[in-house]
Amino acid sequence: MAYELWYWPDIPGRGEFVRLAMEAMGLDYDDCARRMGAEALIADLAARRGRTPFAAPYLASEGLVVAQVPNILMFLGERHGIVPSGMRDRLWLNQIQLTITDIVAEVHAVHHPIATGDYYEDQRAEAIRAATQFRDERLPKFLDWFDAAIRDTPGDWLIDHHWTYADTSLFQLVAGLRYMFPQRMATLEPDYPAIIRLHDAVAALPGVRAYLRSDRRLPFNEDGIFRHYLELDAA
Amino acid sequence: MAYELWYWPDIPGRGEFVRLAMEAMGLDYDDCARRMGAEALIADLAARRGRTPFAAPYLASEGLVVAQVPNILMFLGERHGIVPSGMRDRLWLNQIQLTITDIVAEVHAVHHPIATGDYYEDQRAEAIRAATQFRDERLPKFLDWFDAAIRDTPGDWLIDHHWTYADTSLFQLVAGLRYMFPQRMATLEPDYPAIIRLHDAVAALPGVRAYLRSDRRLPFNEDGIFRHYLELDAA
Repeated sequence: MAYELWYWPDIPGRGEFVRLAMEAMGLDYDDCARRMGAEALIADLAARRGRTPFAAPYLASEGLVVAQVPNILMFLGERHGIVPSGMRDRLWLNQIQLTITDIVAEVHAVHHPIATGDYYEDQRAEAIRAATQFRDERLPKFLDWFDAAIRDTPGDWLIDHHWTYADTSLFQLVAGLRYMFPQRMATLEPDYPAIIRLHDAVAALPGVRAYLRSDRRLPFNEDGIFRHYLELDAA
Repeated sequence: MAYELWYWPDIPGRGEFVRLAMEAMGLDYDDCARRMGAEALIADLAARRGRTPFAAPYLASEGLVVAQVPNILMFLGERHGIVPSGMRDRLWLNQIQLTITDIVAEVHAVHHPIATGDYYEDQRAEAIRAATQFRDERLPKFLDWFDAAIRDTPGDWLIDHHWTYADTSLFQLVAGLRYMFPQRMATLEPDYPAIIRLHDAVAALPGVRAYLRSDRRLPFNEDGIFRHYLELDAA
């Protein structure tokens, strides 16, 4: 079956967590706004009636519309059998994904501490202050937790011996953090070998490897969640 | 069966979304840190091994530990049969809860725009700027969406003719917003009769009504998520 994915066409953003999981799973999808432009996304969202998404990304398939990244991933994972079937593992997987969602929101808040609707340049001084606490306290706290999560189970993945969407999401988080905080990540990475091993293993999954080499993979840029501003990074 | 709920004892905070659902469901639970203090929570979290929560609240029951509010609520709802059984409804319910999670995070960021670990007084000027955009743009956008979500289904609840944890969570959101932004909410509420009707219907649920009158219900205060600072509110 084919899916319609709707997300802003010029940034990896939150949509990338969905794209990566679908590519790893080998699913066929139409990245609609990449093909038709941001105006098409705005028009599609405005035209929907009944149980509409609050925001992109959302996935449409056979009359079903699913929004919110952890919800989309749970849906895809269950439908295509890449998540564990036991209740404990399903809850743990969702818990990991929600924690990734939390740090992603915090990363965005670093460069937009005052107002999501205003320009970075209008909140640059505040972002510099926000980045300090994020780099020094929040980032290691999250990395500690993800590292322990990997080491708590047998195998190199977050859950047992097979990758799930939490692994592809953690890959994207690491890639984004390296883009946004290259100096800080260079300092921290030696402390987290399990996370880096997992990142590399995701990049080597056949579907992901092909995707990363394709023009479907959008580069990070300064309109997305992970933005490289020199003044926000430090070792 | 009895549950152990672990959350900070002096604030409603994120724990309140769990408490309200459990009270509405008539579940027996031990609010451990209310009984034993914050030190007991810190000690409990530090002593856990394997698949530990990133942060409170978390629920422990029969060796299972579940963290992240939308995850805890999904677990309780499924286990006790108060969520719809169809896939579409389950995904929609989770989507609503994740959107409530998003606005709750934005509310917290209003009074802590720079650093969650610093005092409000050290980021007061920035909070005043953040509050303006939240009150004028983000808050109506979220309320529009919740209002449409209620009106999209038959009945006065978020899903069909029975309350779920999304309803008790929306109740708490409205209560918190009224506490934090009394002037702004007085201006906006007439535009959202469906939300107010749902709030009142949740307050009238037998389990919730009894809870709200008990000393188990913690008042909002200036250490929690919803804080009343005069300078952050305006009509």
